[in-house]
Amino acid sequence: MPKNTLAQAASSLARRLDQLARVSDERGETTRTFLSPAMGRANTLVGRWMRGAGLAVREDAVGNLIGRTKARAPCARTFLFGSHLDTVRDAGRFDGTLGVLLPIAALEVVRSRGIDLPFDVEVVGFSEEEGVRFPSAYLGSKGYTGHLTASDLALRDAQGTSVAQVLARHNGRRTPPPRAAHASEELIGYLEVHIEQGPVLEDKGLAAGVVSAISGQTRAVVRFSGRAGHAGTTPMALRKDALACAAEFILATEALARSRPPLVATVGRITARPGAANVIAGDVELSLDVRHPADAPRKSAVAALRAAAQRIARGRGVRSSVTVAQDNGAVACSHELTALLERSVRACQGRSIALASGAGHDAVIVSSIAPVAMLFVRCRGGLSHHPDEHVRSGDLGVALGIVVDFLTRMAYRIGP
Amino acid sequence: MPKNTLAQAASSLARRLDQLARVSDERGETTRTFLSPAMGRANTLVGRWMRGAGLAVREDAVGNLIGRTKARAPCARTFLFGSHLDTVRDAGRFDGTLGVLLPIAALEVVRSRGIDLPFDVEVVGFSEEEGVRFPSAYLGSKGYTGHLTASDLALRDAQGTSVAQVLARHNGRRTPPPRAAHASEELIGYLEVHIEQGPVLEDKGLAAGVVSAISGQTRAVVRFSGRAGHAGTTPMALRKDALACAAEFILATEALARSRPPLVATVGRITARPGAANVIAGDVELSLDVRHPADAPRKSAVAALRAAAQRIARGRGVRSSVTVAQDNGAVACSHELTALLERSVRACQGRSIALASGAGHDAVIVSSIAPVAMLFVRCRGGLSHHPDEHVRSGDLGVALGIVVDFLTRMAYRIGP
Repeated sequence: MPKNTLAQAASSLARRLDQLARVSDERGETTRTFLSPAMGRANTLVGRWMRGAGLAVREDAVGNLIGRTKARAPCARTFLFGSHLDTVRDAGRFDGTLGVLLPIAALEVVRSRGIDLPFDVEVVGFSEEEGVRFPSAYLGSKGYTGHLTASDLALRDAQGTSVAQVLARHNGRRTPPPRAAHASEELIGYLEVHIEQGPVLEDKGLAAGVVSAISGQTRAVVRFSGRAGHAGTTPMALRKDALACAAEFILATEALARSRPPLVATVGRITARPGAANVIAGDVELSLDVRHPADAPRKSAVAALRAAAQRIARGRGVRSSVTVAQDNGAVACSHELTALLERSVRACQGRSIALASGAGHDAVIVSSIAPVAMLFVRCRGGLSHHPDEHVRSGDLGVALGIVVDFLTRMAYRIGP
Repeated sequence: MPKNTLAQAASSLARRLDQLARVSDERGETTRTFLSPAMGRANTLVGRWMRGAGLAVREDAVGNLIGRTKARAPCARTFLFGSHLDTVRDAGRFDGTLGVLLPIAALEVVRSRGIDLPFDVEVVGFSEEEGVRFPSAYLGSKGYTGHLTASDLALRDAQGTSVAQVLARHNGRRTPPPRAAHASEELIGYLEVHIEQGPVLEDKGLAAGVVSAISGQTRAVVRFSGRAGHAGTTPMALRKDALACAAEFILATEALARSRPPLVATVGRITARPGAANVIAGDVELSLDVRHPADAPRKSAVAALRAAAQRIARGRGVRSSVTVAQDNGAVACSHELTALLERSVRACQGRSIALASGAGHDAVIVSSIAPVAMLFVRCRGGLSHHPDEHVRSGDLGVALGIVVDFLTRMAYRIGP
């Protein structure tokens, strides 16, 4: 086999990312949703690349694409790589796909260097992570880890078709919730390579960074109910302006998050009613999104913001409510895997930084069966979920080098 | 003629307001728009009441209902009363109608008391003030004062019918913009009785108050353009949050207006884009409505708010714009008429207060041909443009007494 240099492998990776981006359910953009025709074609294409890298390929009952290399020794444990092959509508080329195609390229480099891995490796292209077709995400990794529930199977898409019906049609038979692909004791760990989808690495001037934890998230709906009134005839002193309440709350949210890094808290959606230029807003509803890599600071922030909403409303004679709609705990990355990954990052780019993932990833679900680690790769302007999503080819090379180094360190550490 | 007591006249006025509220284009609510079938029926009904009060009745080319009493002396000047008979959709019973039916009742009382008015009186029910059918208000008073323009006639309703076409259909012939009903020198003045549509009189515990001026109004659209971003992955320090800008601006607007009474300034409409709970708002657009009974303080406030928007945006690395969409000057009420009206108010309810009208009224347009005065009548909770709009029957009696007193004082002042 010819020696596959990192530079060649990085170029090939970039070409494959481009080629995969053209596999789409919609002409002229990149859109692939759970078990769609384009997802079938994507699995075929990526499966071919997996086979080229020496992996045995299969597809499981929920459409996850699984490539596997066996160690020479029998009964070796398994190291997992993965991310998702589905996309948002009109997506970029890197979100998800990078975490599937980069490990394939890394395995090709490792193989070409004649390094024997003393563990099995599985690279998984999860079939669903973005929550586009059905009103819930992670159908792929939930299926892989045995966490797909009856209520997941009952979810319906815009056409009224349930997950269960889609799976039955795909598999030609009724498909019960699959069992986990692996018992925990068979697994060494899981590494997910993903674009950062945020601006921190760009701000720090680094190609890659190590994720310390995947933040927990609280989502809530905040309502202020004051009194609508005529904008011309109601003196300032007699107003109960729900939008002025909301403005105070938005700034209180921002000030709290600024004072407690790495807390982030966001009001991104706001509706003022009746919503006319000449009428004082009587009712305002806004979204609150609070995230932190640890659970206690997040819960304390949500409590503080709930109190702030009450205090602001009381000061204006307005009613308020804060209704929590979603409350997900943080997922800590494995200290051991992360420490190893940091050494690879330092070896390849001089220094490493730890950063929290504010967004959820397949690693959240996989953490239920294996220790997880994540490598973030810089993306231009932090932009994601957009066709302009971009990773420099140089950064692809650095990230690939890091994963090759990581696999090599793992090989020496676990040893034959 | 039997002596018509104030109490009897007030009861009759209340019944007529109820009866007129049932004249509607929509069953079960009160909705009358420019030259609609219900407006025709309203003119017929009110015209009957005018005739009963001894007025000669006509309708002009734009559908204004005009009732007129002649003084004994020839060539007497004319005093005008008026307000509008059209309504918003699903309106209350008092907005507009009170200013037409109350003067009719007052003239009945004056006549029954045997007082000879030494001037002509015209009571006008304007055909359009609310701007419901066409995208502009005051079509009635503009027609009456000779200010209806070719561009007014070109306005189109939701069916694409122009004002010119509606008038031609109504009059059976092409209708050029009518000339003013009166030359200025023929007119003594104009008094409009109107519900306050605000909470000040209720707050002060008074049935009626005298309007000092009709506020000028500036309407603007304020835009903040920051950078959308992922709510989970963008640290607080790297955000350019357009909604946080908007929140600062809303509070700056409120603080400015509170510090400069009787200035009122309102942000009633807000749109944040992309408007998702998990995305930092990149663009926010909001409405700004600024009113003051004098022009200079309003202009100074708008300039201060424009500067505030710039300062807030600059502090956050965000772009801003303030686009003025409408800029109407204030209309001062006549000192002479207002002083006379205040004496009547003090005579009837012990004390008088002066208040600015934050809303526009037909008096704005009539002020172009006559000195104007306005009497505001308390309405429950300041509520208007709503079926629950309410004036206590006792307050109707007080307001009627004030107008009877005012006419009587005018009679003695102008004298035969």
